[in-house]
Amino acid sequence: MNDLGKLSINQLTTREQWSLEQAVDGYARAGVGAMAVWWEKLREVGAGRGAKIVRDAGMRVTGYCVAGQMTAKAGAAWRAQIDENKRMIDEAVALGSTCVVAIGGGLDDGSKDITCARQRTLEGLAELVPYARQARMRIALEPLHPMVCATRSVLCTLQQANDWCDGLAADDIMGIALDTYNVWWDPKLEQEIERAAGRIVAYHVSDWLADTKDLRFDRGMPGDGVIDFKRLRQWVERTGYTGHHEVEILSSRWWAEDPVHVVDVVKQRYASVM
Amino acid sequence: MNDLGKLSINQLTTREQWSLEQAVDGYARAGVGAMAVWWEKLREVGAGRGAKIVRDAGMRVTGYCVAGQMTAKAGAAWRAQIDENKRMIDEAVALGSTCVVAIGGGLDDGSKDITCARQRTLEGLAELVPYARQARMRIALEPLHPMVCATRSVLCTLQQANDWCDGLAADDIMGIALDTYNVWWDPKLEQEIERAAGRIVAYHVSDWLADTKDLRFDRGMPGDGVIDFKRLRQWVERTGYTGHHEVEILSSRWWAEDPVHVVDVVKQRYASVM
Repeated sequence: MNDLGKLSINQLTTREQWSLEQAVDGYARAGVGAMAVWWEKLREVGAGRGAKIVRDAGMRVTGYCVAGQMTAKAGAAWRAQIDENKRMIDEAVALGSTCVVAIGGGLDDGSKDITCARQRTLEGLAELVPYARQARMRIALEPLHPMVCATRSVLCTLQQANDWCDGLAADDIMGIALDTYNVWWDPKLEQEIERAAGRIVAYHVSDWLADTKDLRFDRGMPGDGVIDFKRLRQWVERTGYTGHHEVEILSSRWWAEDPVHVVDVVKQRYASVM
Repeated sequence: MNDLGKLSINQLTTREQWSLEQAVDGYARAGVGAMAVWWEKLREVGAGRGAKIVRDAGMRVTGYCVAGQMTAKAGAAWRAQIDENKRMIDEAVALGSTCVVAIGGGLDDGSKDITCARQRTLEGLAELVPYARQARMRIALEPLHPMVCATRSVLCTLQQANDWCDGLAADDIMGIALDTYNVWWDPKLEQEIERAAGRIVAYHVSDWLADTKDLRFDRGMPGDGVIDFKRLRQWVERTGYTGHHEVEILSSRWWAEDPVHVVDVVKQRYASVM
């Protein structure tokens, strides 16, 4: 049994039911003291007011989602993406978040040049390093599942995230967010988790359903799918990771449920499965 | 412009419209002299008669699909899977196929142990090596897209296929089938294609649609998606591959079309895109 001390809930888990204020309140009432914040929910109430709501509730923020997305080829569009990322870093600071989570971004509109998209993202990250360093905000690179490569993230594997971290040579400010759903299938997983020792700043949890029907919004509640969480957790903790376990379930099925019930099930599964 | 000499069509492309006999006839009438055969279509008419239909038409067979699937944990079930694979090898021989294509198989029912599933598959492949060698039938390992890992194939990347080939140390009889749809996203692709030099015995082509809606049956006609076929082809041919380009489109959209039209579009795209 796990106590609730290390449980965090990413507010995407109750995206369709709760505003930022409602999520903060709902999680706190359930005894969950940490959460990840989604940028649209924050900006809905204004970044300043949103950050105050979170801080006043004493809620720990284990991640601010989601930055990255700097794959534009054209200079002006790319520059705007960099600026947007800096704004995300500022907001993460206001929230007192552990990190700002960054994915790779999808292919630029009409582009078939994945090599260029990756190059652009790396150049963008290199530009963000000094800015993040000055703000003292860790950037956590999150590889997404390869099935959303075209539209969401050309950063697809933990091996690639490790390679990028090696290349950027900024381990003081650049880390990795590991999401079980995105990486569970990876034949190199154990080995690349070991290699990521000291870099893992966020650990996201949801399950892969054997009969998955949607490429983005059919994630499973831990225990309902095929992922061996005990083994993954062991690998992650072996690297020295002592941070939170952040449940992040993007799911049309769970978005249709009473959010109080959803949080309750998350707590049960945290205790029994994760 | 490519002439049609190296074009092959996997009969799954017209799965819902044509039987084996109709596909052989339809492809031949369109001037396409090579195809891949799907096991259910072959057995529908009986393996002996099916092989005769294909041979009498002078059709080259670039692959017989799909073997593998030896992830059962229980001894008897696993033994049955081995036997089924041997039968597939025999049928591939009857067809005069270039290879029998083998995927990894999904997780055993109710299992969350992906390591065990991979181990079982490797043990199975090791058992098949002498049988395939005696039959002189090449086994082509095909990594499938990670999104079908749970249900279809624990063999997920080209790196893993290369690692398995290294481990099996049977390059005379064990090769690799590379499918653009399954691997296009892979950050290690260029490097692992180079590493697969001499092993690539089949090259499968379909496109990744940016707005993909289904995990299995929404593959795109080459040119309709985001894959840079010219670059991939270059990488593959640089290894010395001179074999066919086998178009394999599993798609509810194309299965609803007149198959004569589908074959015609395949030919056009082969000339202009691939």
